[in-house]
Amino acid sequence: MAALAATATLGVTAATAGTGGPALRADSGFTEDRSADLAKAIDPAKPKNVILIIGDGMDDSIITAARNYTYGAGGRFPALDSLPFTGAMTTYGLKVGAGPDYPIAYVSDSAPTASGWSTGKKTVDSRLSQGPSAASNIPGENYETVLEKYQTQGKLVGNISTAEITDATPAAAASHISQRACQGPTDMTACAVEKKSATPAGLGSIAEQLVDHKIDVLMGGGKNRFVQATDAGPTVLDSAATKGYRLVEDSSQMNAVTSLEGGPVLGLFAPANMTTRFAPMVATATGAGGPYASCANADRGDQPDFSRMTRKAIELLDNDKGFFLQAESAMVDKQEHSADICGAIGDVVELDEAVQEALNFQADNPDTLILVTADHGHSTQIIPAAANAKLSTTLMTADGDPMTVGYSTAEAGQSQSHTGTQVRVAASGPQGANVTGVIDQTDLFATLLGRTPSE
Amino acid sequence: MAALAATATLGVTAATAGTGGPALRADSGFTEDRSADLAKAIDPAKPKNVILIIGDGMDDSIITAARNYTYGAGGRFPALDSLPFTGAMTTYGLKVGAGPDYPIAYVSDSAPTASGWSTGKKTVDSRLSQGPSAASNIPGENYETVLEKYQTQGKLVGNISTAEITDATPAAAASHISQRACQGPTDMTACAVEKKSATPAGLGSIAEQLVDHKIDVLMGGGKNRFVQATDAGPTVLDSAATKGYRLVEDSSQMNAVTSLEGGPVLGLFAPANMTTRFAPMVATATGAGGPYASCANADRGDQPDFSRMTRKAIELLDNDKGFFLQAESAMVDKQEHSADICGAIGDVVELDEAVQEALNFQADNPDTLILVTADHGHSTQIIPAAANAKLSTTLMTADGDPMTVGYSTAEAGQSQSHTGTQVRVAASGPQGANVTGVIDQTDLFATLLGRTPSE
Ligand SMILES: [Mg+2]
Ligand SMILES: [Mg+2]
Ligand SMILES: [Zn+2]
Ligand SMILES: [Zn+2]
Ligand SMILES: [Zn+2]
Ligand SMILES: [Zn+2]
Repeated sequence: MAALAATATLGVTAATAGTGGPALRADSGFTEDRSADLAKAIDPAKPKNVILIIGDGMDDSIITAARNYTYGAGGRFPALDSLPFTGAMTTYGLKVGAGPDYPIAYVSDSAPTASGWSTGKKTVDSRLSQGPSAASNIPGENYETVLEKYQTQGKLVGNISTAEITDATPAAAASHISQRACQGPTDMTACAVEKKSATPAGLGSIAEQLVDHKIDVLMGGGKNRFVQATDAGPTVLDSAATKGYRLVEDSSQMNAVTSLEGGPVLGLFAPANMTTRFAPMVATATGAGGPYASCANADRGDQPDFSRMTRKAIELLDNDKGFFLQAESAMVDKQEHSADICGAIGDVVELDEAVQEALNFQADNPDTLILVTADHGHSTQIIPAAANAKLSTTLMTADGDPMTVGYSTAEAGQSQSHTGTQVRVAASGPQGANVTGVIDQTDLFATLLGRTPSE
Repeated sequence: MAALAATATLGVTAATAGTGGPALRADSGFTEDRSADLAKAIDPAKPKNVILIIGDGMDDSIITAARNYTYGAGGRFPALDSLPFTGAMTTYGLKVGAGPDYPIAYVSDSAPTASGWSTGKKTVDSRLSQGPSAASNIPGENYETVLEKYQTQGKLVGNISTAEITDATPAAAASHISQRACQGPTDMTACAVEKKSATPAGLGSIAEQLVDHKIDVLMGGGKNRFVQATDAGPTVLDSAATKGYRLVEDSSQMNAVTSLEGGPVLGLFAPANMTTRFAPMVATATGAGGPYASCANADRGDQPDFSRMTRKAIELLDNDKGFFLQAESAMVDKQEHSADICGAIGDVVELDEAVQEALNFQADNPDTLILVTADHGHSTQIIPAAANAKLSTTLMTADGDPMTVGYSTAEAGQSQSHTGTQVRVAASGPQGANVTGVIDQTDLFATLLGRTPSE
């Protein structure tokens, strides 16, 4: 118990250590005017390198819960909370319809949201970097993505995730398909006209399209999609080898690659999604956890964690012409769907560590823009212990005090829903000022590509 | 139906008019780099005038719902969404305990949160500008407030709200009491030792303390608290008259006052809380409203609305030495407690209009700092139509499409709970840069008072 001295002023806290959390900080208060700091952070130059870090479903509520648990309510994430430019971002999408105008979807899934920043245009649920249409199985117009544009410009590109690398968020960066479920060549039932073997030939499954893009660093989970046979016979992995990809399947294999001279890198660290930092603690109707409960580390075997993947990607991509990297901490969302507070919290912490890797690189390469945001809101609410919720969990935080979270957008055992709230967006580096105020997800597109410098 | 052209890029939308909403805007997209705009907005000078506008419970979720309904998902609040400095603010509080350290409360009520910015210090639920203690009925140490400090400096001060003016948020600005329920002299059962007639004499009820402060402009609801007899015999209203206050009780009486030369102004426009803009639409287990439902205007009689109150307060307070005004759109919170989406939405819109009044004044008086934020998160979630929630309501937005919101932190008929999420904070004007990044509520204290300019 007991964490804040009654006489502490301006938010300076004295927190006590929780179980399993990183070292604590106590710097939430500040006394100096920060106008000069903010002015110093502004740089109108077009960035050379761009690192986009996504926490899937990482809205303000799960950020706060993760901070409370890990650093205490008055603590701060060393990297995530230190970014100088901050704003709010709307995340709505469209629904299928007759067009040319389409109804608005006030809550979206990960496909149209990632497509929003990848292409600068809105689309419908489940669709990847392709426009809206009359029905979910009717493909829309393909929209060029940030990653594709940067490849054309001659920059190196990376795309990493802790989910299957064929999952919606990484898929939007470099594939165009009507339905996100069409991840591998034998998952194409819903996307028959987009198969490579269709007439006319389609672009194929997400796994095939990612490999066809020769993305310089492509790493995550989802090996199961790549061992599927393509319509032409060989597996996607065979096809990747033909294109010169080097396959790495665990942390040490990843670490052994120190340059891209030998060809692009395909990391497939798990059959499906990668393992979260913390083992699940799933909310129940009567309340999981308790005032002394804490999160346990999961057994991740030889999998790299998200920040190591991010560091390696940056190391490999760094080159004279610059690079674009999209890095997704994906399991925040998946574990919120499962009403698993520990899984979600641990992967927010890993995102913070990945942001630190990006900041470390930026310190030596100030022409690097770092953007950190979420794709949409999610279900977790921090509630009073006495409040009702359909499902809840209580954890002891780094303050030594109990925090209760509730999940009420689905019944026990069913998938909790996304929500339609605007989400936090933060940035550091050149043109980072473009995330301040209230922006839309599609506004990130031009920012990621670098805008014409202002005067 | 149908609101966004498929070919629209960068968030530029073409919305269709909803029922009852203000004129629509379609300016969410932007093409220019905004680094120079942000740089131009930075001013390290100490502000002469400070206007703090609070939306009680106004987190990102209710802001988004109100925007969707009123302007469409791609629309923008003309004032609220235009503020150049934006950040996230933590809102946690303390729990009573043995001290000197106190347990953390991850969800707080409106008393410790308003006390946080008013005094720069954390305190316990229900307590107003007074420190924590061993029990809720044991008064803590009184902390000096921003309003009190500015009065000492010779600035004029205002304190207005759409709730009872003795409710927690306005009370924290200029009273010190252990429990927020002690609003009038005959409401002091829980605060016996703080009565004026106690030995030693206490400061009295919230109504008495507000009047004793001779606040230059004090306006809101809550007349019922002021007609109560003080321990000394006369009512609080009698006591206010003795101190030179002029009482105004409706819109035209308020408008008739055009200067403070005749004495301070006490506006009491309702017996209890003031009327919201929209009539209630309360969520139900089976779903209130529907795809064509819209909010109806409430009958507000002669009550002024929040933006007119704000404009009048600014007009009266404007003077050579500067002023401090706290203006609260209070009913956002009250209606969220009631699972009433219309009540909450309408009063977010009124807050936006009040921010516009502040911006209009700032245009002629650039030495004015405007801060806009909430005290804590709340219960409303924007959810998919197919999602579950304990209670839900569907409305047709300005896009012409249905939006569903859910409430699940209490059962039907009970009060929905606050939540513990960090909330949006925004600013315009000198030293507004101090709200960027992640700050704590107590950090507002020094910003409101004006920090030593940075270089
Ligand atoms: Mg994802
Ligand atoms: Mg209030
Ligand atoms: Zn997502
Ligand atoms: Zn999801
Ligand atoms: Zn409140
Ligand atoms: Zn409340």
